[in-house]
Amino acid sequence: MAKRIDSTPKKDGFRMPGEFEPQEKIWMIWPERPDNWRDGAKPAQRVYTEVAKAIREFEPITVCVSPAQYQNARNMLPANIRVVEMTSNDSWIRDCGPTFVKNDKTGEVRGIDWDFNSWGGLYDGLYFPWDQDDLVAQKVCEIEEKDSYRTPGFVLEGGSIHVDGEGTLLTTEMCLLSPGRNPDMTKEEISDKLCEYLNLEKIIWIKDGIDPAETNGHIDDVACFIRPGEVACIWTEDKNHPFYEQAQAAYKTLTEATDAKGRKLKVWKLCLTKEPCYLKGAATIDSVEGTLPREDGEVSIASYMNFLIVNGGVIVPQYGDENDELALKQVQEMFPERKAVGVRTEEVAYGGGNIHCITQQQPK
Amino acid sequence: MAKRIDSTPKKDGFRMPGEFEPQEKIWMIWPERPDNWRDGAKPAQRVYTEVAKAIREFEPITVCVSPAQYQNARNMLPANIRVVEMTSNDSWIRDCGPTFVKNDKTGEVRGIDWDFNSWGGLYDGLYFPWDQDDLVAQKVCEIEEKDSYRTPGFVLEGGSIHVDGEGTLLTTEMCLLSPGRNPDMTKEEISDKLCEYLNLEKIIWIKDGIDPAETNGHIDDVACFIRPGEVACIWTEDKNHPFYEQAQAAYKTLTEATDAKGRKLKVWKLCLTKEPCYLKGAATIDSVEGTLPREDGEVSIASYMNFLIVNGGVIVPQYGDENDELALKQVQEMFPERKAVGVRTEEVAYGGGNIHCITQQQPK
Repeated sequence: MAKRIDSTPKKDGFRMPGEFEPQEKIWMIWPERPDNWRDGAKPAQRVYTEVAKAIREFEPITVCVSPAQYQNARNMLPANIRVVEMTSNDSWIRDCGPTFVKNDKTGEVRGIDWDFNSWGGLYDGLYFPWDQDDLVAQKVCEIEEKDSYRTPGFVLEGGSIHVDGEGTLLTTEMCLLSPGRNPDMTKEEISDKLCEYLNLEKIIWIKDGIDPAETNGHIDDVACFIRPGEVACIWTEDKNHPFYEQAQAAYKTLTEATDAKGRKLKVWKLCLTKEPCYLKGAATIDSVEGTLPREDGEVSIASYMNFLIVNGGVIVPQYGDENDELALKQVQEMFPERKAVGVRTEEVAYGGGNIHCITQQQPK
Repeated sequence: MAKRIDSTPKKDGFRMPGEFEPQEKIWMIWPERPDNWRDGAKPAQRVYTEVAKAIREFEPITVCVSPAQYQNARNMLPANIRVVEMTSNDSWIRDCGPTFVKNDKTGEVRGIDWDFNSWGGLYDGLYFPWDQDDLVAQKVCEIEEKDSYRTPGFVLEGGSIHVDGEGTLLTTEMCLLSPGRNPDMTKEEISDKLCEYLNLEKIIWIKDGIDPAETNGHIDDVACFIRPGEVACIWTEDKNHPFYEQAQAAYKTLTEATDAKGRKLKVWKLCLTKEPCYLKGAATIDSVEGTLPREDGEVSIASYMNFLIVNGGVIVPQYGDENDELALKQVQEMFPERKAVGVRTEEVAYGGGNIHCITQQQPK
């Protein structure tokens, strides 16, 4: 029922659909680590619950929970959200979960189970061990009875890629060429691997992401496809903004790029927060050797770009920032056919990501 | 998607189908405890695998596995068997898993999540704690997106009941009236509860089971319905057999009984092993305070009655005993429409049960 397939998706006629294509359900992992989340992860659990409820307005969602937190999560989440036991090392299913691919002829969906090494392994990974995270993709596929492809020796996180579903992928050099991922592969070899597994003809490389220290610059804080031929990109004209240079450079790259079908991209601008999002309450995060030390006043990576597209909706991070409303308005304009819904998620930013990082879509 | 229902199955038009009715799938839990199983549970894992494979010849099966054993179980079990993470205290899903009930009008299936207390709680239970076992029923229902009934304060194990699907239940007084289950309820109150939850009109009470020390005499080692109006019952004419008296008494009770529809039962005889099944290798079982001490030469409860009925088949315990062949032949005669398949399972008997105890059917 859930075999390991010893071929590649391209050979078998599977492609990765765009996030904007019809979805079956969304997956999340319940946050728990007291050495990553403030106050024993209780505020994060409340925010994940709000995100899950916002998604559930549009489509089904399954939340994976450790044995220790199973009962609490089951009680905090509404009954119309499925809760399944799953051990993990933290709660970023975008990165450790399966990337789903689909065969348009048969309608079959399969998973890709990339190697996961905690965003850089022993080189600059964020925690050790990551063995349970690396099993998440397989466990999800088993529950769903989906066959899967394993890529032994090839490290990739779902947050480092976006596709248009028509042969084009967006990513960053900062992440995919980082020494903690696949240091023995050339850029061409990495491109070939992605093309073979995601069924692509073209990769658009943006140089830098906005968080070199955590994910090594995941694309999902910078830009994404909102439909074939159209992308959104972070934007600011404030030269003092910490992400000014990366935003300008990414925008320039995208306006000059063409996709796999030879189309010039339409690039939508999405604002950044007016003020950087500073970590508060760092003293309530457990201090454990080998995990990232945290201090009040550090800049948390708060990007409105880290939204999730769902069936009929877009779930957009809000930070209590002056630009929250503008960002929501801009996203709504990009998606006139969907309802843009904001959720206050600075707590997730404190932990190292946002709505897109903590979710994974399973296509219909 | 998986609500707790605050009513009763009878009120909602649900009944427990007979095991011989069409099934959707079978559930098992992977054995692991080194203080219950010989040699670190490795022989038990091999035998559970053989049982699972025998079942898979007839219908789908899902095996629940702890995080620690997930990879090993996934690798030992064939790919066409679903493996899901589930923490438990041991591996007896018949007793801690859900009892499924069905609404014949809508086709909907729901679970009953009985209280589970390790076969007697602090009075004479077999291990402590049992908190994870008690969550198994809920977790299975969540994975399957089945609504469920919880029975707070009412303890029951699936192995202590058999039904004909037409209003009749078989059970033992030894178990259901034991002081470790529901000591504050009268026999009548217990009967009422069963009738309300399993949608029954009649309970046939057999006095004693054959294992007073472990399950307090579960019915599933003694007798079962093979179809409406017909039961199988253990039988021996050897007065020196350790289960002679219980077998004779159960047979007599059944031949004199009528079912909910007023039918006199047809009673099929099923032989016992020629020789008792003696525990060997007890020294390889971890010795832990609070769990049952084990010694070589103890009689393990080896009953051919502990078979599992599946779609088109019956999976029958075999013990390397002179009567193995006879038992298989007798079961085959009871079920001319199914294929009787034997699996060597004395390892499971050493651990305290057999094929029926380690499986749970989910009706179609």
